[in-house]
Amino acid sequence: MFDAYGTLFDVHSVVALCEQSWPGKGAALSRLWRAKQLEYTWQRSLMRRYEDFARITEASLRYACLALGLPVDEERRRGLMGAYLELSTFPEVRDVLAALKASNLKLAILSNGSPPMLRPLVANAGLRGLIGTVISVDQRKIYKPAPAVYQLAVRRMRVPKPAIGFVSSNCWDACGAKSFGFRTFWINRGGAPVDELGAAPDHVIRSLDELPALLRPPVS
Amino acid sequence: MFDAYGTLFDVHSVVALCEQSWPGKGAALSRLWRAKQLEYTWQRSLMRRYEDFARITEASLRYACLALGLPVDEERRRGLMGAYLELSTFPEVRDVLAALKASNLKLAILSNGSPPMLRPLVANAGLRGLIGTVISVDQRKIYKPAPAVYQLAVRRMRVPKPAIGFVSSNCWDACGAKSFGFRTFWINRGGAPVDELGAAPDHVIRSLDELPALLRPPVS
Repeated sequence: MFDAYGTLFDVHSVVALCEQSWPGKGAALSRLWRAKQLEYTWQRSLMRRYEDFARITEASLRYACLALGLPVDEERRRGLMGAYLELSTFPEVRDVLAALKASNLKLAILSNGSPPMLRPLVANAGLRGLIGTVISVDQRKIYKPAPAVYQLAVRRMRVPKPAIGFVSSNCWDACGAKSFGFRTFWINRGGAPVDELGAAPDHVIRSLDELPALLRPPVS
Repeated sequence: MFDAYGTLFDVHSVVALCEQSWPGKGAALSRLWRAKQLEYTWQRSLMRRYEDFARITEASLRYACLALGLPVDEERRRGLMGAYLELSTFPEVRDVLAALKASNLKLAILSNGSPPMLRPLVANAGLRGLIGTVISVDQRKIYKPAPAVYQLAVRRMRVPKPAIGFVSSNCWDACGAKSFGFRTFWINRGGAPVDELGAAPDHVIRSLDELPALLRPPVS
């Protein structure tokens, strides 16, 4: 069970597009945009005012542009939102997923993204043949790391919690999945410390390349 | 009903202490510390792994020091945590609270802080004679902006929601209180944009000085 953004899909192209639109400000904008995007998912979940991830992504972009004093017209806004649907995968993703699938593991995505964001994303990256199931938090109208989100995966996959390995590059997401009861893998691409949330990930790896050796194929 | 940290109490002394311990790094450390502190309140609330604010504040300090490669020994850690109990108020706080109290308003605090953090804070700032009620989220084991937190204020003050004016310098907190049903005042000290959370604060002010004119005394 894979997280999508930052885990399988590299958001770097969005950063590059920000830099192209606002030279010298791209890094700051994409950092604030991402930070607000996540904050809004947590705050709205706690406020019980769910709004889907596309709208939250647009709202956080508007906020970030205002906060940094960067003018954003309709065309740029649409360009940036469109880039989210065409993210490329990290270089190792295709080969690793193919290897895992070949060893009889069922592969799935569990993401904050709304279905209209996830469908083109998976299709454009050519992963439809590898990822059998795509699950969105939108079904439950609450965001990660609420247990109800991880429960969606149990229900859809019809296997017990400990049989699910959950992979995320967001440490707090891996902690949330661990707290829920999954076996968890945190992809620590940037060498950050483990978040102190009382439920540390089972495995800390540098890229998906380390996954196949850690996952024995299930007895068939 | 006032938020505490950043609203009545100025955390600048903590920033100064960070700078004193790690010259040139104080601003970055205190920024990351504060960001992680809030993230952990939201993430733990969603994970249903509540831990009190003193522990979260310590955990986020440990994370921030690790992330920035700053060594922190027991003495420094204790010094920084101790500073949290002795924050000074913003310059206008005492006079404004006294004026509001003189017009027969009941003054209270509703804070993420745990009771052992809030008690010395209010006492050290000499506000015990002005603030009649201090309410901590700790009673409900969940953090702002969950509605259950704001409900604590209704229960303790025994007045209907719209009779409560909620004042916070954290925009998301003012939005949460507005979404719950309070009349809300966001103290926008830094000139930031309004957060896009679907429930904008009723009033945006620059400091507490603007409050008395906005609050008519209740008919007694």
